[in-house]
Amino acid sequence: MSTEQPRRIEIYDTTLRDGTQGEGVTLSLVDKLKITQKLDELGFDYIEGGYPLSNPKDVAYFEQVRDLDLKHAKVCAFGMTRRKGIKAKDDVGMNALVDSKSPVITIVGKTWDLHVDEVLGISREENLAMIEDSIAFCTGHDHVEQVFYDAEHFFDGFKANPEYAIQTLKAALAGGATRLVLCDTNGGSMPEFVLTTIKRLKETLPEANIAIHTHNDCGLAVANSLVAVRAGAVQVQGTINGIGERCGNVDLITVVANLKLKLGFEALEREDSNLHLTELSRYVYELANQNLVPGQPYVGSGAFAHKGGMHVHAVQRIAHSYEHVTPESVGNSRRILVSELSGASNIAATLGKKFDIENNRDLQREVLDRVQVLENKGYQFEAAEASFELLLYKAMNQCPDFWHLDHYRCVILKNNGNASSTEAIVKVKVGDDYEHTVAEGDGPVNALDGALRKALQHAYPQLHDVKLMDYKVRVVNPNEGTAAKVRVMIEFAVRDENQETLRHFTTVGVNENIVDASWEALTDAFAYHLIEAKAETLCV
Amino acid sequence: MSTEQPRRIEIYDTTLRDGTQGEGVTLSLVDKLKITQKLDELGFDYIEGGYPLSNPKDVAYFEQVRDLDLKHAKVCAFGMTRRKGIKAKDDVGMNALVDSKSPVITIVGKTWDLHVDEVLGISREENLAMIEDSIAFCTGHDHVEQVFYDAEHFFDGFKANPEYAIQTLKAALAGGATRLVLCDTNGGSMPEFVLTTIKRLKETLPEANIAIHTHNDCGLAVANSLVAVRAGAVQVQGTINGIGERCGNVDLITVVANLKLKLGFEALEREDSNLHLTELSRYVYELANQNLVPGQPYVGSGAFAHKGGMHVHAVQRIAHSYEHVTPESVGNSRRILVSELSGASNIAATLGKKFDIENNRDLQREVLDRVQVLENKGYQFEAAEASFELLLYKAMNQCPDFWHLDHYRCVILKNNGNASSTEAIVKVKVGDDYEHTVAEGDGPVNALDGALRKALQHAYPQLHDVKLMDYKVRVVNPNEGTAAKVRVMIEFAVRDENQETLRHFTTVGVNENIVDASWEALTDAFAYHLIEAKAETLCV
Repeated sequence: MSTEQPRRIEIYDTTLRDGTQGEGVTLSLVDKLKITQKLDELGFDYIEGGYPLSNPKDVAYFEQVRDLDLKHAKVCAFGMTRRKGIKAKDDVGMNALVDSKSPVITIVGKTWDLHVDEVLGISREENLAMIEDSIAFCTGHDHVEQVFYDAEHFFDGFKANPEYAIQTLKAALAGGATRLVLCDTNGGSMPEFVLTTIKRLKETLPEANIAIHTHNDCGLAVANSLVAVRAGAVQVQGTINGIGERCGNVDLITVVANLKLKLGFEALEREDSNLHLTELSRYVYELANQNLVPGQPYVGSGAFAHKGGMHVHAVQRIAHSYEHVTPESVGNSRRILVSELSGASNIAATLGKKFDIENNRDLQREVLDRVQVLENKGYQFEAAEASFELLLYKAMNQCPDFWHLDHYRCVILKNNGNASSTEAIVKVKVGDDYEHTVAEGDGPVNALDGALRKALQHAYPQLHDVKLMDYKVRVVNPNEGTAAKVRVMIEFAVRDENQETLRHFTTVGVNENIVDASWEALTDAFAYHLIEAKAETLCV
Repeated sequence: MSTEQPRRIEIYDTTLRDGTQGEGVTLSLVDKLKITQKLDELGFDYIEGGYPLSNPKDVAYFEQVRDLDLKHAKVCAFGMTRRKGIKAKDDVGMNALVDSKSPVITIVGKTWDLHVDEVLGISREENLAMIEDSIAFCTGHDHVEQVFYDAEHFFDGFKANPEYAIQTLKAALAGGATRLVLCDTNGGSMPEFVLTTIKRLKETLPEANIAIHTHNDCGLAVANSLVAVRAGAVQVQGTINGIGERCGNVDLITVVANLKLKLGFEALEREDSNLHLTELSRYVYELANQNLVPGQPYVGSGAFAHKGGMHVHAVQRIAHSYEHVTPESVGNSRRILVSELSGASNIAATLGKKFDIENNRDLQREVLDRVQVLENKGYQFEAAEASFELLLYKAMNQCPDFWHLDHYRCVILKNNGNASSTEAIVKVKVGDDYEHTVAEGDGPVNALDGALRKALQHAYPQLHDVKLMDYKVRVVNPNEGTAAKVRVMIEFAVRDENQETLRHFTTVGVNENIVDASWEALTDAFAYHLIEAKAETLCV
């Protein structure tokens, strides 16, 4: 490197397309738009949104994504080469790609002669024509800025018949492709072979811009991406947290951290993006409703965990002697497993200003202790910032009781042949008065939300502005049989008088009973909103 | 390779020592002995059993492991160099190592000058003496066949002060160490650096036998092990499933599969050992009480799972065009996932034989249409194979009504200050009789499960064998306000009269009401189990 400018590597995210091929991964349209926004904020270069022909959700995505005001990222539509024997303009898939109005189109085609002969059953010349035509058709539309060519099974194809594999790439270049994406589709290639193959390719096609797309079937997805960059690739494709079919795609979180922190490359447009990698990882896990992977490189909850003893003492003194990068460099934090030394500074860093407790070590420690007790019970505060702030308000005696619960009762009734019905009854004391209300709902949470609102609406009209938006449930310790607990997280939106959303916040509840866990998250949200809205309690 | 004999790589397992440093990993003495036996059966060369000084369990392990009749593996005891300023023979740790009677002793020492100066706070000469003395003391005992030297933080040390790092290795050789184990202790090294470092080392110490010990903090543990072998390392150290501190050690399962199936090396003494890698992986997960990792290379439950219609069709015809190795080569099996992305061929592939519908295209298409309709409503069948099979039974008119629901009612009550209570009432008609039952539970699902069992237990005693194991919930389309639906998946275990688990199955339910979605999954499971158990319905 020395005085040279570090080389900048393009990062192409396919969480929304290849990632959703992973077992059990489904993202709603809203999730996909949220992830797009988040990736753009962190400076990702390309975001593959989906396959416009495959389903109505992807069609809707490409319509709605145009309304997002993306700062930097280009949205890409993914599709296959045209079918055999017809013109690209007559192919329904080709037209769907162009109609998506995406600035970038990524087209996948066959490289491996075996696939051409046996899977497609077409002549090798027709395959070359399909590649060139399809790309040329897309580049022929003014709104299409670039077409990337995904060379499926490239490394297997190159091993079997290098001449033909190179012909397919030449066809893509002839069609106007601006990136040749070498795909290790079945994840079986070794780094040494990836390196030598790309080096040979660079000799044959010195002007071509190479991208790399790897899978983790041999535990080598990261290594294969890095050797490709070393051999001259300008772009890495992968997914957040490595979600994807079989053993997953390469995890872009790990790739970006390695490129930037270990190898001296530039990546992601926003300068401090690596500081947000942990946040990004957890955001995607939450939306995909997946569990965090504690041992995930760089961003896992265990990535900077240290066990007790002399070692911990040394870590405190000379961290770099035990940690290959600082946890802060990726937005993660160190955890000391046997002691409670960690975290107080985190609290100071995140909320010190808002709560004016930057120098109040005792309070920080008190809250940290409480967090540790609750996390042992299954709570999680990383994505439930409102419940966490409520802990702080309580520790500072700034969380009054806004009401007193007498009881709630929730009844779900189903008669054969009819849809089930749900009724919730709430009795609370507000000031000197009892409020006893009932509401129906789609389910218990909806009904309890309705009944509690009715009970509180006169005393606290501010609750009118807060609306339940999203609801997530997870079993916390599934293997303990009847003692299994559920963790409920509920997201709320705060709206102004014009129904414009001002902000979102999330609360958490944990209980063996899913309804009671939901009640806890619901009441946390109401209390939090009333404090933030500076409501005066009627209970004194 | 060509006509040469493939090079044999020694495999050194440290699951029992470094693996148990992982967060939440604990193995009982019996577990440790069982794993030792299993590793020996598969032909592992070295098994590091523990640290005799650290706790009584490890002391007992070394006593009892001598009673196992190991065929090939050598048990290794792990410890540190002697303390400063005393003789090795006077060091309690040194004596514990020798007293363990292990044929191999592995001693870890400091390589990095920073650690010598700052952590130990001793002179560099004393550190060299500690290494040489400690090893020489061990080799001086007749029962000790070999001493391996673990060079802690070797790659960091070599980067900081290569001359001193090499001096430490020379001290180890002088003491009689037969393997120099280069440890990437904090997992931060890049493969390129590992490669060049070992190559340089081989020039300086051409006769030394190098071993490699890596961690996965950069997602490169496998790659680093493989480049070390390429550079001449004779031994790889790691753990089963990559368990270990922070991001884990290298996964020996992946390393062995790559070495044997992809790179043409020999490893593990037993010839068919790679055929048992999946079994080994799952055995260790079970003893360590950990969940399987579906995306684990080679042996994960998803490693050979296929989605997507056209693709599946091709996999059936020419598997090697989509799979980098055969699932059988590592004792794993192929899985075809059913989803809206898949075609009728998926159905034929998964269940054609069981249901004898391999050639019944109409039925396949009818079921696929039904799957697509249901998946649009939020159902997911990939992991809910029992609900999917129930669809098939229904399409084939082989799913009788076992009972008729009159109604259920579920009541959740919370009085302030008390834990919530849940009661479920179920009224069903079975044959000519009504059953009207009530049960309490931790939450609504548990209560409904109890009440429905009571109602059906006389008519269908087969239900006694099926038990609710795990429960998952997610919101399907969270931002559609009141119309948001939840998807519930419930896993059940079928047990024999001795409470041994025979198999697991999973069902799915979708509804706006979480309780009703759970009811659907619950009743699907009961119906499915009754069909599979060939129960005769009393409702005709």
